[in-house]
Amino acid sequence: MSTMFAKRIENMKASAIREILKVTEEDGFISFAGGLPAPELFPVEEMQIVSKTVLDECGNKALQYTTTEGYLPLREQIVKRMNTMMSTNLCAGNIQIVSGSQQALDMSGKLFLDEDDVVLCETPTYLGAINAFKAYGCRFVEVPCDEEGMIVEELKRIISQTDRIKLMYVIPDFQNPTGISWSLERRKAFMQVINQHNIPVIEDNPYGELTFTGEVKPSLKVWDERGNVITLGTFSKIFCPGLRVAWIAASEELIAKYVILKQSTDLHTSNISQREISKYMDMYDIEAHVLHLREVYKQRRDLALSLMEEMMPEGVKYTRPEGGLFLWVTLPEYMDANSLLCECVKQKVAIVPGKEFFPNGGGENTFRFNFSNASEEQMYEGIKRLTSVIKSYMKMECKAV
Amino acid sequence: MSTMFAKRIENMKASAIREILKVTEEDGFISFAGGLPAPELFPVEEMQIVSKTVLDECGNKALQYTTTEGYLPLREQIVKRMNTMMSTNLCAGNIQIVSGSQQALDMSGKLFLDEDDVVLCETPTYLGAINAFKAYGCRFVEVPCDEEGMIVEELKRIISQTDRIKLMYVIPDFQNPTGISWSLERRKAFMQVINQHNIPVIEDNPYGELTFTGEVKPSLKVWDERGNVITLGTFSKIFCPGLRVAWIAASEELIAKYVILKQSTDLHTSNISQREISKYMDMYDIEAHVLHLREVYKQRRDLALSLMEEMMPEGVKYTRPEGGLFLWVTLPEYMDANSLLCECVKQKVAIVPGKEFFPNGGGENTFRFNFSNASEEQMYEGIKRLTSVIKSYMKMECKAV
Repeated sequence: MSTMFAKRIENMKASAIREILKVTEEDGFISFAGGLPAPELFPVEEMQIVSKTVLDECGNKALQYTTTEGYLPLREQIVKRMNTMMSTNLCAGNIQIVSGSQQALDMSGKLFLDEDDVVLCETPTYLGAINAFKAYGCRFVEVPCDEEGMIVEELKRIISQTDRIKLMYVIPDFQNPTGISWSLERRKAFMQVINQHNIPVIEDNPYGELTFTGEVKPSLKVWDERGNVITLGTFSKIFCPGLRVAWIAASEELIAKYVILKQSTDLHTSNISQREISKYMDMYDIEAHVLHLREVYKQRRDLALSLMEEMMPEGVKYTRPEGGLFLWVTLPEYMDANSLLCECVKQKVAIVPGKEFFPNGGGENTFRFNFSNASEEQMYEGIKRLTSVIKSYMKMECKAV
Repeated sequence: MSTMFAKRIENMKASAIREILKVTEEDGFISFAGGLPAPELFPVEEMQIVSKTVLDECGNKALQYTTTEGYLPLREQIVKRMNTMMSTNLCAGNIQIVSGSQQALDMSGKLFLDEDDVVLCETPTYLGAINAFKAYGCRFVEVPCDEEGMIVEELKRIISQTDRIKLMYVIPDFQNPTGISWSLERRKAFMQVINQHNIPVIEDNPYGELTFTGEVKPSLKVWDERGNVITLGTFSKIFCPGLRVAWIAASEELIAKYVILKQSTDLHTSNISQREISKYMDMYDIEAHVLHLREVYKQRRDLALSLMEEMMPEGVKYTRPEGGLFLWVTLPEYMDANSLLCECVKQKVAIVPGKEFFPNGGGENTFRFNFSNASEEQMYEGIKRLTSVIKSYMKMECKAV
């Protein structure tokens, strides 16, 4: 049977981790694995009113087919927010609405990548992007990063030594998986290199607004001299992921290409969901909603860090992100987070092994920890279970030595 | 700039027709171009109740991320309907929920097609499928059809003469664009060939339920001996397209592949939309709703045919579909429907030139006419304008000769 498929399917295997993580749905399980926003913060009652209003005002239109580019008032609201918050200078014509950022990644792979083309990315990087781009048969070259973001000298060296670079993929704000945010200086220096080499850059920014210091950093677009930066934004983390509404912000020339791709990919994103989100922003204060998310997620990050401080054995390191949903844990070198996960699952607690985030392998002694989706009790109990598994692993290792 | 894109982008041009048809939004325009269901038949009030109920019962869950395969109760409802209506024998594990059938076409291209692979299709065929598959660099070989469907002797000849056939794409029920439905005998004979040659078949079936005789024909799956048939269904035509909910029905082995693709394509289809459609089917009688659509669309087809009978000049032929949304008009050979459309637009009436539906060119003297989305008055006035443009074209041609 397998010979009937396209060659690209060989690169696309079911994730073993995904299979393991299926059990996290069970009762009593505490999962720090998913990148889930806290569902108790979803504006459910407001959505009831919004949904009724949209259907009252324009039900027939909202349930019909619509334009591929997306609902114009929503595109206008998006650029207004971006221009205010991220110092961009965009208009509605710079926006293509998509069905979640994952679709923007897939469409970007389709737009730019032929087989064996090279994608440059941070190391580690978002596993959803790895999978989306891999479907187009590309190779990945990982650029080393430190606590301020991508190391620009390393980037220069890699560019000078690498053929067929077609795309750069970065997450400068509270990165998935590490939680690290690029400094302003690093952004500028990075964009100098990009302007010089004329490489399309995907700036994936689902978490930038979830800042715990109050500071939202400017988009890379601010320093973009040649229309190379394609910024991805989404309502999944600042509103609700279940609606699948996100956007691509790019030059009108690039948006024209994305529109053609979107047309053949799925015609358009849910008409009614677009109108509901737009109506929500008309009727309610989304900025107040985001402020509330920041507060709650900051408390959870604080709790996670203080519990780790208290309970984690020596030799375990972790990042201290100033926003977003994740922190990144580095275990002693001899430990393997895949084995750790197997033990964790027995204790009904879960994380995602870091290996998943390295397109060319590595990172076996790391894991991603999500802090946005656990209550105080779950956080306490979950970290207790997690540290106890780590400690047993360490003891076993000592005995083995 | 253009060298930065993937090779496939060369095959993907903005449709000139789409640009022309943008003006059909203007006041006073009567469009028979789109494949739009009648919006006045959408269950708007029911959707208000359904939406409120879903958010009441499980708002936090409905607005959160969900599984890639889709909402299990909805998948169960889909197979129950299909098994009853189309004589299939499916279970929920045979269903992948997608964001409109267009996404199923895109994902099928991704799953099966390498560059230069061959897709067999009816001539003419659905333009959305042509665009979706073209993105993967395939070639099309068109199989001649008559009023009973694909001509099986021609199919055999083409299979014996063609290398690299990877996929077959057909619309056996009230085809888009011709409105023709395959006879039972033709379905059987077709599947005999497919079983013998082991070719994956996409059976695209958005219109099968919109039958004007009351008869819903069995799916090609009924004669599928080797799990080759992939049936696409959608809520767009029997419910509302604005929600973007459709499905793929295939062997569990194939569904496992589609799940991996869907994961990297857009994670999952709108969680809340899936739950709303499922809840609608719990709370209301979708069969009664479909019966009502059949009645209204039948009246519109009848009206379109009787007006054409009355007004169309000699030499213009058209199909008499027994279901669906479209009929197919053939003009005298010397006429060009693209030129016709330009004149039509001046008279504020629109159709889609048939050329769009021939992947390898041809069909210049044909056009597709949608009858589902016009009121009685619009139908009368629109066909009056259309026939008057056709008549002027004919007169001009006479003068030129």
